[in-house]
Amino acid sequence: MKKLNVEPLRGFRDIFFEEADIIDFVIKESERLARRWGFKKCFLPTLERFELFAMKSGVEIEKTMYVFKDKAGRTVALRPEATASVVRAYLRLLRAQPKPLKLFTIVNVFRYDEPQYARYREFYQADFEVFGSSDSYEDAELITMLHDFYDNLGLRHEIIVGSVKALRTILSEEGIDEKEQDVILHLIDKGKVDEALERLEKMARSPERAVETVKELVSIEGGEEVLEKGVEIMRQSGYGYSFEDLLQLTKYLPDDVKSVIRIKLAFARGLAYYTGLIYEVKVPGFPVSVAGGGRYDTLTKVYGWEYVPATGFAIGIDRTAMALSKMHGWRSERPTVVVIPLDEEARKEALAIARELASLDVDVILLTERKSIKKMLAYASEKKARVVIILGKKEISEGKVTIKNLDKHRQISCPRKSLLDCLADALKT
Amino acid sequence: MKKLNVEPLRGFRDIFFEEADIIDFVIKESERLARRWGFKKCFLPTLERFELFAMKSGVEIEKTMYVFKDKAGRTVALRPEATASVVRAYLRLLRAQPKPLKLFTIVNVFRYDEPQYARYREFYQADFEVFGSSDSYEDAELITMLHDFYDNLGLRHEIIVGSVKALRTILSEEGIDEKEQDVILHLIDKGKVDEALERLEKMARSPERAVETVKELVSIEGGEEVLEKGVEIMRQSGYGYSFEDLLQLTKYLPDDVKSVIRIKLAFARGLAYYTGLIYEVKVPGFPVSVAGGGRYDTLTKVYGWEYVPATGFAIGIDRTAMALSKMHGWRSERPTVVVIPLDEEARKEALAIARELASLDVDVILLTERKSIKKMLAYASEKKARVVIILGKKEISEGKVTIKNLDKHRQISCPRKSLLDCLADALKT
Repeated sequence: MKKLNVEPLRGFRDIFFEEADIIDFVIKESERLARRWGFKKCFLPTLERFELFAMKSGVEIEKTMYVFKDKAGRTVALRPEATASVVRAYLRLLRAQPKPLKLFTIVNVFRYDEPQYARYREFYQADFEVFGSSDSYEDAELITMLHDFYDNLGLRHEIIVGSVKALRTILSEEGIDEKEQDVILHLIDKGKVDEALERLEKMARSPERAVETVKELVSIEGGEEVLEKGVEIMRQSGYGYSFEDLLQLTKYLPDDVKSVIRIKLAFARGLAYYTGLIYEVKVPGFPVSVAGGGRYDTLTKVYGWEYVPATGFAIGIDRTAMALSKMHGWRSERPTVVVIPLDEEARKEALAIARELASLDVDVILLTERKSIKKMLAYASEKKARVVIILGKKEISEGKVTIKNLDKHRQISCPRKSLLDCLADALKT
Repeated sequence: MKKLNVEPLRGFRDIFFEEADIIDFVIKESERLARRWGFKKCFLPTLERFELFAMKSGVEIEKTMYVFKDKAGRTVALRPEATASVVRAYLRLLRAQPKPLKLFTIVNVFRYDEPQYARYREFYQADFEVFGSSDSYEDAELITMLHDFYDNLGLRHEIIVGSVKALRTILSEEGIDEKEQDVILHLIDKGKVDEALERLEKMARSPERAVETVKELVSIEGGEEVLEKGVEIMRQSGYGYSFEDLLQLTKYLPDDVKSVIRIKLAFARGLAYYTGLIYEVKVPGFPVSVAGGGRYDTLTKVYGWEYVPATGFAIGIDRTAMALSKMHGWRSERPTVVVIPLDEEARKEALAIARELASLDVDVILLTERKSIKKMLAYASEKKARVVIILGKKEISEGKVTIKNLDKHRQISCPRKSLLDCLADALKT
């Protein structure tokens, strides 16, 4: 008989044990962040109409979407990101909600990309969105949240901040249409500045001024102080933008958050729907950004609905987990207790004990398979149990249990009634 | 401009606020159950090769799968359930792990079914699987876990238990092939007993005996005591099965768990891979089962690999959440604090306060949009905040904050330094 091919599809993953525990930990921390800052959890469809994403996700995402026809002939797509779905649901159900409306969702997203380090075809994001707030004060809150999140994880990080308004204003005033703007921003995002400048030179009304200004902006990054330079460059070149949004933001940012901010005067990101402030979190030594976000004030209008200012970010769960395990390891703190029934007669009582411990929130593994005591103890060690509870005929008849501390190779006999006290003792380090 | 259609695809859902909170709560409780009983969390692909599910998922699931070709021409499917993926990953990576191996995953699954009450095209499951345990003792553990899970949720429930061996043995000994067995079991599962008996009569070697026996088994259900009747029926009709697995199970089950067990002598469930014990959790007054599981000892062999005894269950997250909100309502316990900066000058300090509270695990909503004080307080009420913290120019210059308890319409002025104590006071009920 032919063996089933047990490999997952290319770019997909089977995630177990420590790798799964770290991802789970990052998810839990994201949920805590959301709860603490008043973001309400929601669940949205994994599958959407293709047009939802086709309208404004950007050059890169469109190429890499999982698109297919369902049984009724609808063209559908596995979501490549969460924001479009949150906006759709907002327009459908939440327009009358008090503003600002803060929403949060954990999603699996899909991109048919060439798999490589930290890039998978299915990955996880924690997505935070705020509707009905046009103010940079909201962005200051979001960036503060991101900083605190990575700080709590103990990950050194830098938050790269910019505004797409800098480049968009120049390109618009040079008479370049939006589609071509997207291409030029995409090139700058990918570090292909020369190529971007070449295109710009060909298409701009005043090519020299445009190329000079963009070149200068691209070359400047640093702390808060670079904003003055940016204002000066824009004033001299005469374009109608002077970093108002970034100046406003830095006014509200707490000092410790400011200290991890790196401002890039000509910053661009992958998603085409951003309209103003954008940012990305980088962990030094980790090759790709671990989180990112920005303001997308016109997306509802692109969808043909009313204007709703909006802003948000997504935490890359997998990447954050990878950075965490790469940068400083990780281990679970909770001790495990293995319960071992030696004989048939002890099995019912062993289940009762496992159940009692579980109800007290102790992590317990009941040994449900018959094995030699040696093999059972080996199993407990492999499961990294600190303590095993052993009971056989003898223990049952005497109303006792045997408690063995595997770290200290110490074993005591304990009255069944005092189980919890004995266990607490045995678990003491 | 054409407005985007903001409806989700048919059978898919946008889940917000209380509905989302209940689902989230059920997920958290499932995770707690897994941790307490030593089930290790894993993450598996949402998309798999079609053949993985095509081999043994059963008549119903095959018809309703989301199948399509990816960009490389592979025939792929959105998972209709989790067990097949867990088994695949087990065969790929985990064969050398110490047994029993207990795994757990939370998944979104997809079925292109006709949407109806409590049936969606995307829904959520908490999936528990155990590999390498052939013993009914393991099944006793799983059923005990399920009982405790629903007990903790405060949901009255019944666990319907049976063994596919009863019907399978009769059908096999009557010379009926496996595919036709699947059809007959499917009919019995769907309550179409007459139709099943008709087919049986046509195909059985000894039609009268077969029909009589199945008819009798189908008519009997009840507590532990019905097993004796089952044993007697099988003895008299001469088929080679006498409910050994169920007798073994009841030997191990704790008494309180036994009291919610209802044994069905001729029980069948939707999935074709079950080989022995099967069970379903029903909540009285709720029309569909909320969880189900069973033993599938031969699935690895169906896949062309070695024999690995295995058993497990899935909790229907959505259905459990629906039952929970239908049976006894549900509400979140955590109080929310809204922080209101009245003037520009107060915004930086308001963010600092929000951050301080968040770091202490208080749920806080910072008001990031400028509004009149009246509107801001209305916002706080709509968000069901118990307390608001107000600060404006005056408070900043005096080093104070104003704390308003919305329940009690009481307002105090509090030194900034004593914020936490004042807040604790204000939150007291």
